[in-house]
Amino acid sequence: MTAPLPPGSTLGILGGGQLGRMIAVAAGRLGLQAHVYDPAEAPPAGQLAARTTTAAWDDEAALAAFADAVDVITYEFENVPTASLDLLGARRPIRPGREALRVSQDRLTEKEFLSGLGLSVAPFAAVHDAASLAEAMARIGTPAILKTRRFGYDGKGQARIAAPGDAQAALDAVQGAPAILEGFVAFRREVSVIAARGLDGSVACFDPGENVHEDGILRTTSVPARLTATQRTDAVLLAARILNALDYVGVLGVELFVTDAGLVVNEIAPRVHNSGHWTQNGCAVDQFEQHVRAVAGWPLGDGARHADVVMENLIGDDVDRVPEIAREADTAIHLYGKDAARPGRKMGHVNRILR
Amino acid sequence: MTAPLPPGSTLGILGGGQLGRMIAVAAGRLGLQAHVYDPAEAPPAGQLAARTTTAAWDDEAALAAFADAVDVITYEFENVPTASLDLLGARRPIRPGREALRVSQDRLTEKEFLSGLGLSVAPFAAVHDAASLAEAMARIGTPAILKTRRFGYDGKGQARIAAPGDAQAALDAVQGAPAILEGFVAFRREVSVIAARGLDGSVACFDPGENVHEDGILRTTSVPARLTATQRTDAVLLAARILNALDYVGVLGVELFVTDAGLVVNEIAPRVHNSGHWTQNGCAVDQFEQHVRAVAGWPLGDGARHADVVMENLIGDDVDRVPEIAREADTAIHLYGKDAARPGRKMGHVNRILR
Repeated sequence: MTAPLPPGSTLGILGGGQLGRMIAVAAGRLGLQAHVYDPAEAPPAGQLAARTTTAAWDDEAALAAFADAVDVITYEFENVPTASLDLLGARRPIRPGREALRVSQDRLTEKEFLSGLGLSVAPFAAVHDAASLAEAMARIGTPAILKTRRFGYDGKGQARIAAPGDAQAALDAVQGAPAILEGFVAFRREVSVIAARGLDGSVACFDPGENVHEDGILRTTSVPARLTATQRTDAVLLAARILNALDYVGVLGVELFVTDAGLVVNEIAPRVHNSGHWTQNGCAVDQFEQHVRAVAGWPLGDGARHADVVMENLIGDDVDRVPEIAREADTAIHLYGKDAARPGRKMGHVNRILR
Repeated sequence: MTAPLPPGSTLGILGGGQLGRMIAVAAGRLGLQAHVYDPAEAPPAGQLAARTTTAAWDDEAALAAFADAVDVITYEFENVPTASLDLLGARRPIRPGREALRVSQDRLTEKEFLSGLGLSVAPFAAVHDAASLAEAMARIGTPAILKTRRFGYDGKGQARIAAPGDAQAALDAVQGAPAILEGFVAFRREVSVIAARGLDGSVACFDPGENVHEDGILRTTSVPARLTATQRTDAVLLAARILNALDYVGVLGVELFVTDAGLVVNEIAPRVHNSGHWTQNGCAVDQFEQHVRAVAGWPLGDGARHADVVMENLIGDDVDRVPEIAREADTAIHLYGKDAARPGRKMGHVNRILR
């Protein structure tokens, strides 16, 4: 067990988007300095970080200098190239560790890992060509979704197969990339658990949030979620099982389908998660600080929730509504400092406290 | 009425201490960039600001460049030199405005201003030498406190006069600076109101907090304060009277003594205030964001409180307790990124949410 990073230490953050930005602010609350690494000029996180390195993921000199300038490294997204991680990891601890990335970077590996833990997942099969897709469809049926194994997010890299005739179009959509066919799950609702595991192995979960997606993008998360006491316990237990199996350090997002037969794991994300943004205004220690605490070897916060909250994402020109939202009572605005409001781009979010 | 500053605009902050730091974070939440100006190298606010200028208060070129690089200017402390404000104010709006600074920079002017509004203050008299002190003591009696008219904070620049024989020692303590003698007020408790006034003249107050001082430094603030409904209303009305009289824009701290004869104004601070730090974990919009909203011409938040909170300052080596505090439930830690924990130095604070 390593000693906790003292105030004044530096947290390196790979990726300077909104998640990195909110991690940087949380690090600041604990007296830690944030150093952001991002290939893009002027990333959102850079506006609230002590230092920013602007360099490509394959710039070995920049990666080495970055590692040498920080005490521990974390990341805001799971697709940092493996070679970069090798270089960084040889110099400084990377938390969460490589096993979590290996599993979550590949949808097939992730499904096999979760099944191997005895957890329920959607029916799935590997697909690499028309023949394997036909075989998968014969077993799983339709409707189903064809997803690339890697690099998908917010509904990208996915094609829906409503009926067998859609197979070729779906294959074309994923452009021959290694893929996975997933059967549909008849679910009542979607929830997620934001779970954390400390360097000492302790586990803490935030109250599950209930998610509503639109066009493959998270629209709202509400706490408390409509769950039975049993489902609530199951959610925490399965999250802990995943964390322990990965020897995980940091915050992990676990998306779940609530079905009549129990909870089905949709996917995991080895990082802070959009569906945990409500914690900023509902908990003394939010998911970003919880992540920093874990990564820095501090004790975890207990995750207790002191308010009911509805988080709403501001996507694309939703951000034009900010002047009106600013007049609402009990409403916290969180903007990401991005200049261009492209369609589908997450520009900010709002936490509405219910009293 | 000027239009609200759109996201992407830059807020200039004079002073890079903990108040400037928390203003910078709040500006970030609204999508604004913070540019901090401070004479000291590596000020705490710089760790969470998009840009920092390190230059002296009388560096005219640096002040001009700073003003030209920002859209509006605010400050974290009331003792920015007048000449610097003249230069800055000719180039960009400074909010809160000069009148608030003029009044609050001088304890005598402040007392006369408050009395002129019909508000109760401690008995006071101007002191500039032994004769005027003797005259003041004859009128006000002892015990009393001799305070320098300018540049006092956290109990500095003050000398207590328990009995007439202490007069010379008190004069020596203030080193011949223009001073004010204040009579003691027999108070039941100290409370403060963190009040805000928008560019449109609207006023919003946070729930009054109850303060406990030790050695002249704020130790804790608790909400709700023990106040009658009438006292609560009075506190808000008097704060609004002060804000309107100053044509104020921004957050103002009003310290009050609760006496059997009603509320007595102790002092005002034309800025965010230590006794308002509880709002970070008790309100959807905290005092720092409220200040940014006002200064940036946004609508004020309503200031509603959704939790009971006790704020405790971490002073000097109190910060050594952080490892234990980090294990407490429902406790939010806010450290200021300062390296040396000198006695009396504010290193951070803790907000404990009561459930």
